Amino acid sequence: MPDMREAKLKMQLQCPMPSLDTDIVTLGHGSGGLLTNRLLDKGVFQLFQNEALQRREDGAVLNLQGATAFTTDSFVVSPIFFPGGDIGELAVNGTINDLAMCGARPQYLSLSFILEEGLPIADFWKVLVSVKFAAEQAGVAVVTGDTKVVERGKGDQVFINTTGLGTLHPRARLGMPQVRAGDRLLVSGPLATHGMAIMSVREGLTFESAIESDTRPLNEVVWHCLETFGDGVRLLRDPTRGGLATVLNELARDGRLGLEISQDRIPVQESVAAACELLGLDPLYVANEGIFVAVVDERVAEPMVEMLRSRPGSSDAAIIGEVVNEHAGQVVLRSAIGGRRVVQMLAGEQLPRIC
Amino acid sequence: MPDMREAKLKMQLQCPMPSLDTDIVTLGHGSGGLLTNRLLDKGVFQLFQNEALQRREDGAVLNLQGATAFTTDSFVVSPIFFPGGDIGELAVNGTINDLAMCGARPQYLSLSFILEEGLPIADFWKVLVSVKFAAEQAGVAVVTGDTKVVERGKGDQVFINTTGLGTLHPRARLGMPQVRAGDRLLVSGPLATHGMAIMSVREGLTFESAIESDTRPLNEVVWHCLETFGDGVRLLRDPTRGGLATVLNELARDGRLGLEISQDRIPVQESVAAACELLGLDPLYVANEGIFVAVVDERVAEPMVEMLRSRPGSSDAAIIGEVVNEHAGQVVLRSAIGGRRVVQMLAGEQLPRIC
Repeated sequence: MPDMREAKLKMQLQCPMPSLDTDIVTLGHGSGGLLTNRLLDKGVFQLFQNEALQRREDGAVLNLQGATAFTTDSFVVSPIFFPGGDIGELAVNGTINDLAMCGARPQYLSLSFILEEGLPIADFWKVLVSVKFAAEQAGVAVVTGDTKVVERGKGDQVFINTTGLGTLHPRARLGMPQVRAGDRLLVSGPLATHGMAIMSVREGLTFESAIESDTRPLNEVVWHCLETFGDGVRLLRDPTRGGLATVLNELARDGRLGLEISQDRIPVQESVAAACELLGLDPLYVANEGIFVAVVDERVAEPMVEMLRSRPGSSDAAIIGEVVNEHAGQVVLRSAIGGRRVVQMLAGEQLPRIC
Repeated sequence: MPDMREAKLKMQLQCPMPSLDTDIVTLGHGSGGLLTNRLLDKGVFQLFQNEALQRREDGAVLNLQGATAFTTDSFVVSPIFFPGGDIGELAVNGTINDLAMCGARPQYLSLSFILEEGLPIADFWKVLVSVKFAAEQAGVAVVTGDTKVVERGKGDQVFINTTGLGTLHPRARLGMPQVRAGDRLLVSGPLATHGMAIMSVREGLTFESAIESDTRPLNEVVWHCLETFGDGVRLLRDPTRGGLATVLNELARDGRLGLEISQDRIPVQESVAAACELLGLDPLYVANEGIFVAVVDERVAEPMVEMLRSRPGSSDAAIIGEVVNEHAGQVVLRSAIGGRRVVQMLAGEQLPRIC
């Protein structure tokens, strides 16, 4: 995504860090008093200018019409800066994408920080600018927020909570009750990219081509799918923590249906597959950020994949399997050589703090 | 509040801790996989039963009508259990009260945890039950959530983010532009109680009568004020971090108005005043949780105070001052012996992690 990277760089240049008379975040920045006010005035309010924020009340007053999706996530990814993104972008895109998975157009975000004392203001600023960048990209307004500071060693640099609101697409009829046998399973892009980007930094691995996180907003492409295929789209999920295997197991369990997927149809980038191999990880269990899983009417599957492939960010979209009447509650993987095995939900934890 | 304490105890007995095959929170509980699912199934979903949660989607779909308030707060209070409450109650009441300050009836909450590896499950459960208790008390539904786990030493037991939604009272006309000279300043109860409850535990102080946090939901009393006095109520704020002095300074600054308050009218419990004295703290700067500041039409001031005094939780309500045309941007305190001094916003930080 060289265009996006360029746009982000441009925004970073347009938003130089203000002087705050200190290089690091102190406990006083969380006091609610003078330092908090300074940080907000020169930092947050300067950066996210909109009417709701400008009123400086305890909350924003919004006019929402009809069915509205509401979703929350706290982000604790480590390291906070990683190839392809940072915790700021991730926090915005993650919540944007949860709204998109509900069939909603993201409109408003709340933004809440837990900062560790001693965090360089420059790092905080970089994260804030990333939040702004991602929010503008997805067309959402940051309308309310909060900042707390904890002592050194009681947090880890930055944690971010984003909570989002968005209006449902009028044609969205998403949900487990819509799913039936014969429906197809799609993924919009290659697996395990985000997880392996984080892991390769943590483990100090270098590959011929660097693995970059696939963090990106999915709202536009999802909106387009709903616009085009309406209730032919039965269900959407983003396979973040726990990976594809976990999301599919949740679907099979909650819907009391069987799922079958084919190993050779599941897209994985070559460098990602190599990294997984090296670290002994199964891409099915590794976290993703910029892709979604869709359950769709079988008649919609081919045209939807074709549409996805024609768009940036989903050129590797693929039909990977289907919903079946057999083995209710189970996910079965057909291997390339014809074997079949049950894929379980992630047990334990391979990759803590991936998002 | 002996009735509330009894009701909470009753709920704790009605919600025994489920068996989770482990006594402590592990990184696996944040994996998104099997352990996360078990924790959610046996813990959160059992406790907070409602339609939106039961659907187990990435977000809740709500039907919101008209002007809606939206507010977020992260809670990092230490210790997580303190006299009069815990972080669970505080996190619910804090966001409830921010909605109330917007003139809204709280309806929906999101609930997001950042847990530290090693946290006793029993403590997590106790916090969850407190969240349930406070939510039921205020009549809000917890409709979506998230749980992350960080390694030992990268967090501090439990951090909670709550984000709330509520519908505005049809007669609410709150905001800085409504405030004018001659308006009166009210507080609904005694100052500094929450802050000193936390401080007395931290410092190991004991007094003749224990100081308990005043954490409580303010939505009902505020709704009643709006119902009765309509646009006679100009502005509401809860003086949490930074205390009354900071909130009044924000009002004076944002409204370019002068404020005058009288020291001898400001209610402070005797034991709280003694604790402040002992620790060298000014009650004007100490955090509150269960009281609000109101700017009201002078004709409304007396009847509103009378009404407040007749209700539990606000029996010490008082008119403490007024809005004046002089010294715009400044808060002036008249002392008991007739002196006048400017009250500044909190500088630095006296009481980190008070909420």
